[in-house]
Amino acid sequence: MTRQELNREINRKRSCLCVGLDTAPVSFEVNKRIIDQTAPYAVAFKPNTAFYEAAGWEGWRCLEQTVNYLRTAWPDHFLIADAKRGDIGNTAREYARTFFERMDFDAVTLSPYMGYDSVAPFLEYKNKWVILLALTSNPSATDFQLFPGTGDKPLFRQVIDTANTWADNNRIMYVAGATRPEMLCSVREAAPDRFLLIPGIGAQGGSLEKVMQYGKTADGDLLLHVSRAIVQSEQGPAEAARLFAESMVRFFS
Amino acid sequence: MTRQELNREINRKRSCLCVGLDTAPVSFEVNKRIIDQTAPYAVAFKPNTAFYEAAGWEGWRCLEQTVNYLRTAWPDHFLIADAKRGDIGNTAREYARTFFERMDFDAVTLSPYMGYDSVAPFLEYKNKWVILLALTSNPSATDFQLFPGTGDKPLFRQVIDTANTWADNNRIMYVAGATRPEMLCSVREAAPDRFLLIPGIGAQGGSLEKVMQYGKTADGDLLLHVSRAIVQSEQGPAEAARLFAESMVRFFS
Repeated sequence: MTRQELNREINRKRSCLCVGLDTAPVSFEVNKRIIDQTAPYAVAFKPNTAFYEAAGWEGWRCLEQTVNYLRTAWPDHFLIADAKRGDIGNTAREYARTFFERMDFDAVTLSPYMGYDSVAPFLEYKNKWVILLALTSNPSATDFQLFPGTGDKPLFRQVIDTANTWADNNRIMYVAGATRPEMLCSVREAAPDRFLLIPGIGAQGGSLEKVMQYGKTADGDLLLHVSRAIVQSEQGPAEAARLFAESMVRFFS
Repeated sequence: MTRQELNREINRKRSCLCVGLDTAPVSFEVNKRIIDQTAPYAVAFKPNTAFYEAAGWEGWRCLEQTVNYLRTAWPDHFLIADAKRGDIGNTAREYARTFFERMDFDAVTLSPYMGYDSVAPFLEYKNKWVILLALTSNPSATDFQLFPGTGDKPLFRQVIDTANTWADNNRIMYVAGATRPEMLCSVREAAPDRFLLIPGIGAQGGSLEKVMQYGKTADGDLLLHVSRAIVQSEQGPAEAARLFAESMVRFFS
């Protein structure tokens, strides 16, 4: 899926919602119900591999089933493997095969720590995306991501400036946490026409309003990830997703 | 396994060898053969999850089988899950369950990019280890790991200095690539009494001699990881492992 195609879906639905599929214990039946209830309000789905691995090989099979179901039943949705991998070249190639061949994800999240050759094998796939961690939503993101370099440029800016040269805005997007809205401006400044995947709304307390305001461009370029606040909501996933989508509408012209 | 116990094994065998179990396609029978042939010369085994995931849920089942076999047949060996994970707290907890509960690994490799709370859940397990990426063996490790901070302190030094405060030398060790032996001194200086896991010998071209010289302490504190140069060697894994171990002997008093 290209940037233009994904933005078309976002503007058609007036929603940047990306639903997390992170129930514990994992269950295909539960995933299927969440998917079918939230798909009309969402443009993307994002299972986090951690929850599937914790259930062993049966969990991994559940992940494969879930992706196959999504591809068949909801072919217009963007599918993200939240895996946060990052390894040397020949090993990265195996991870790329896992998420882009064995499973048909559109994108995979990667950690930038090991640099370009841990990302390159993923960029060889046409119409597939790398989502690179830049500024994450957790409290200790500050430990290293704000490590100040020469001229007080923090590491996360160095990551974005460097990775911008690796591939165009149809291939690389960035993770920027909603829990630091004031820094979203800095991320947006470094990546003015790139997609941002923003976690931290809902259970982690980030403000949807600020994220839409600072993160969205005129084209869209924003995926707003919500997991626990939808899949564990008391009113049910459908109603929770509908409300999230509804509160985004006014940010679309 | 404590630092003392692992060092006892290293000094008993006069070997720091850690054998990688990264065959493609993965096969339990192949792993079993490699394990049985190399175990007498090795103190640790390290499967890399990428190769297992690429084979889908059957691959993941092969990983579980391999760990179970190692635990039963070779209970004195140290078992490392080379996973390079790193995620927010509640997700990191799932990964910790995967590698320390669902499977009985002694250690898991983690990426430091997301900071302390992505590591903390792993440190809650008694007698289990975190192996944090510091300076990796791949060419583009230089992209960010050498990012110079205030006073020209590179990021990898900041990672070591910070993580040294998170847990003692029975719980955290570091990855330092053999392909940069001149920087190994800097790593050793920052972590004088910590275990180092050193990849990059063999297929990646690092020098065993320099690694032993700069990396080993009087106690030991060194795991030297070799994968392709053993599992793909023409002379067979047993002979290749024996030769690696033999070339380490003279570094033991």
